[in-house]
Amino acid sequence: MPSFRLAEIAERFELPLQGNGATRIDGVATLQNGRDGAIGFLANRQYRRFLPGTALSAVILGPSDAPSCPVAALISDDPYLSYARIAALFIPAEQGGDRAIHSRAVVDPDASLGANVRVGANAVIERGVVIGSGAVVGAGCVIEADCAIGADTHIASNVTICRDTRIGARCRILPGAVIGSRGFGLAPSKHGWVEVPQLGRVVIGDDCEIGANTTVDRGAVEDTVIENGVKLDNLIQVAHNVRLGEHTVVAGCTGIAGTADIGARCLIGGAVAVLGHLSIPDGTRINAGSLVSRTLPEPGNYSSGIPVQAAEVWNKNVARLRQLSDFVSEMRAIQHNNDDSED
Amino acid sequence: MPSFRLAEIAERFELPLQGNGATRIDGVATLQNGRDGAIGFLANRQYRRFLPGTALSAVILGPSDAPSCPVAALISDDPYLSYARIAALFIPAEQGGDRAIHSRAVVDPDASLGANVRVGANAVIERGVVIGSGAVVGAGCVIEADCAIGADTHIASNVTICRDTRIGARCRILPGAVIGSRGFGLAPSKHGWVEVPQLGRVVIGDDCEIGANTTVDRGAVEDTVIENGVKLDNLIQVAHNVRLGEHTVVAGCTGIAGTADIGARCLIGGAVAVLGHLSIPDGTRINAGSLVSRTLPEPGNYSSGIPVQAAEVWNKNVARLRQLSDFVSEMRAIQHNNDDSED
Amino acid sequence: MPSFRLAEIAERFELPLQGNGATRIDGVATLQNGRDGAIGFLANRQYRRFLPGTALSAVILGPSDAPSCPVAALISDDPYLSYARIAALFIPAEQGGDRAIHSRAVVDPDASLGANVRVGANAVIERGVVIGSGAVVGAGCVIEADCAIGADTHIASNVTICRDTRIGARCRILPGAVIGSRGFGLAPSKHGWVEVPQLGRVVIGDDCEIGANTTVDRGAVEDTVIENGVKLDNLIQVAHNVRLGEHTVVAGCTGIAGTADIGARCLIGGAVAVLGHLSIPDGTRINAGSLVSRTLPEPGNYSSGIPVQAAEVWNKNVARLRQLSDFVSEMRAIQHNNDDSED
Repeated sequence: MPSFRLAEIAERFELPLQGNGATRIDGVATLQNGRDGAIGFLANRQYRRFLPGTALSAVILGPSDAPSCPVAALISDDPYLSYARIAALFIPAEQGGDRAIHSRAVVDPDASLGANVRVGANAVIERGVVIGSGAVVGAGCVIEADCAIGADTHIASNVTICRDTRIGARCRILPGAVIGSRGFGLAPSKHGWVEVPQLGRVVIGDDCEIGANTTVDRGAVEDTVIENGVKLDNLIQVAHNVRLGEHTVVAGCTGIAGTADIGARCLIGGAVAVLGHLSIPDGTRINAGSLVSRTLPEPGNYSSGIPVQAAEVWNKNVARLRQLSDFVSEMRAIQHNNDDSED
Repeated sequence: MPSFRLAEIAERFELPLQGNGATRIDGVATLQNGRDGAIGFLANRQYRRFLPGTALSAVILGPSDAPSCPVAALISDDPYLSYARIAALFIPAEQGGDRAIHSRAVVDPDASLGANVRVGANAVIERGVVIGSGAVVGAGCVIEADCAIGADTHIASNVTICRDTRIGARCRILPGAVIGSRGFGLAPSKHGWVEVPQLGRVVIGDDCEIGANTTVDRGAVEDTVIENGVKLDNLIQVAHNVRLGEHTVVAGCTGIAGTADIGARCLIGGAVAVLGHLSIPDGTRINAGSLVSRTLPEPGNYSSGIPVQAAEVWNKNVARLRQLSDFVSEMRAIQHNNDDSED
Repeated sequence: MPSFRLAEIAERFELPLQGNGATRIDGVATLQNGRDGAIGFLANRQYRRFLPGTALSAVILGPSDAPSCPVAALISDDPYLSYARIAALFIPAEQGGDRAIHSRAVVDPDASLGANVRVGANAVIERGVVIGSGAVVGAGCVIEADCAIGADTHIASNVTICRDTRIGARCRILPGAVIGSRGFGLAPSKHGWVEVPQLGRVVIGDDCEIGANTTVDRGAVEDTVIENGVKLDNLIQVAHNVRLGEHTVVAGCTGIAGTADIGARCLIGGAVAVLGHLSIPDGTRINAGSLVSRTLPEPGNYSSGIPVQAAEVWNKNVARLRQLSDFVSEMRAIQHNNDDSED
């Protein structure tokens, strides 16, 4: 494990230091489960109660919390962001960092790999693939023909990138992700469903993350597009011809149907279903468990999820919900009657 | 890229030609983003407004739209189906089409491969596997012992087919799919859960599609059955002993629990949950985001999804929903009172 | 196929025998689709109607059903649990049981494998990995550096276990599962999202099951913890720093967000969304299709799923639901009016 003097960290990240700069920091921990040598952070006031008793050696926190910090501190206007940067000091060195192309990788002679590209065991890189310098392709990956992968992009183990996919620089593709697979296009015929050829590609910008076992389908005619800075969590489905605008974030288990056009800087919660052929404006927030079935005319904060109740209570409520339209009609009748009797 | 004269396409697909048959077609594009040399289609009237200004060289469209087409046209009673067939002319040739079994595939000597079978790098084909002629097994796939794969079935990269699975002819299995994995069968005991052995298989008919990262579990006692022509999108869970009737289509992120019996020619939307031990009749449509918790007595069009509202409005509505049964009782009391006072 | 005398099975599992102990049993089948030589079970009274006509050679059933059994029987107070144990006699022998480490596996010389460990073709085991005796690593798996896998744990094909993951003894990890992938931690900055390093691990106890294509993310600071006996179905997302208490079962397509703390012996249905930073007490049941958005103060049986209705009925109800708060206000006004007029 690397270790640093707290003063060294303070200087590197330009943060005011409070307390003993000679404190050695060799890793991270939480406020409530701190340990000697670890640095942590306080960003959410819900955790403020753990500050007085923390066993951390140092805490990254805001100016207003600094006076009550019992140990050394780095003071930041955005403690979580500062933590994100400082914690990167403690990421373990990549496995296999000393090897370039594993002897058991299968790299087509007609693929082009930039400087310092690393390829793991049993990875397959087909003909025509171009990989930018510093990129990593994990063990067991399949990068099909004619893909282009940008510099410093990190593709984890067992990922599948289908032919002719474009991925920008500094992206992170997590294990099991499938990018560029056939879109789900079917035309009905008398003899059953006929496959509609999916002739578009997937085009992913720079600085994107694609989560574990997430799937992004290639376009039917035009491309499926994921713009710069988009972050997708695990087990998300992105169908053909979707566009995700830059810096949009999508949480796990969400499905986005074909030709949905989602703006920039949106926050889409987990387990959301977004139907196809609709648009969501820039800066929209969709809360977890919601269904978006039509174009949203303006940005905002949208929901349709229902939190649990005790089943016996919920079952009664849902029974009434299933008759709600009738109840409203009954109520209208009462109202009408009352109005009449008041006349 | 291959290229064709429009008259040649018209003749091959038996479609009336309007305009210049000598027009060269070398690919597809949309009405709104057309280009010289591309053919597109007009099937949804929502897109009719793009017809007058299209930059396509030719359009596949219905007889009623033909008069307003500014470029050459192929006239079809079902433009989308015609497009599906014509677009297949432009599917890029398969990578590796010139090799049969990749030198880095691991094929058990006791597996039997038909004529013209292709197997990608690092694919593993275990003993007793039988693969029909013309089938393709992608790079990184694992086909476990005793599976049978029909002729011309296409298994994409990194697919897992567990032992003794049966797959018919002309199927398409997309990357990351897992077929024939252990069903989720557990019996409670004093010492925790006991695994119930899953001794059935998965049996898939002809002309089926199984989407990327979709999972289909093997049966507990009898088989899990997917009939001819069934099409499953990505990230779908099909539990043990489910039956999916022929030509049924299921959209992404849907889960189907154990022993659900789903009829033929159903359309199951995305993000649907179908509970177990129930049946859905032939020809039923379940809209996206729905929950099917009981047998549906008759075919029809079913829903239970709730579209989003502005969160502040929705939160008020959902607060009331959680007390709905009580409100209905109150309303009944008012009604009763009114009735009394009218007596 | 192995075959046993029924009396032999009765003795081995200490179950009273009714009828001919010489009956040969060579497999399992259901009551309704029985066959000569097969044993089945009757645990759910819904299936009792199939008992009189069964073609099974023997049935495992409760004492009260024994008198009406037309064939030989084993009598058990828990027929399903007894079936689970007996059926294990008929699990086919593992493929490749005769080989230890496949010649095409890539095992780092600095990995440590216990006695009788089996490793499939094209599996990759990186440096520092420790695997307990009797464990199996399937074809195409990637076990990244410094993982520890307990004795007799069975890892199916194409699984990815990311670096430094801990998995206990006798676990079962199904194909395509991804364990220990980066958690979804992002800090906003002026220039877009900054990755928060995920420095925790995944720690899984003994006797756990992780379903096909299920994903379990590594912790951000502390570990993600899955305790002994937890069983996860397919396509489940477990985010960073979740804790799942012992013997909890989760059905398919469920997502559990970061830092959710779920107690022991819970039953979480399919397609459930559990939000983050909340807790669910021991012994809680959450029914399928529910959303858990806050800490549940006490154990119980919770729901929020809505079963489908005919779409034309549901659409009317949902239209009213979207105005429910207003209707309740109207009703209150009527009530108030009535109260006034009664004064």
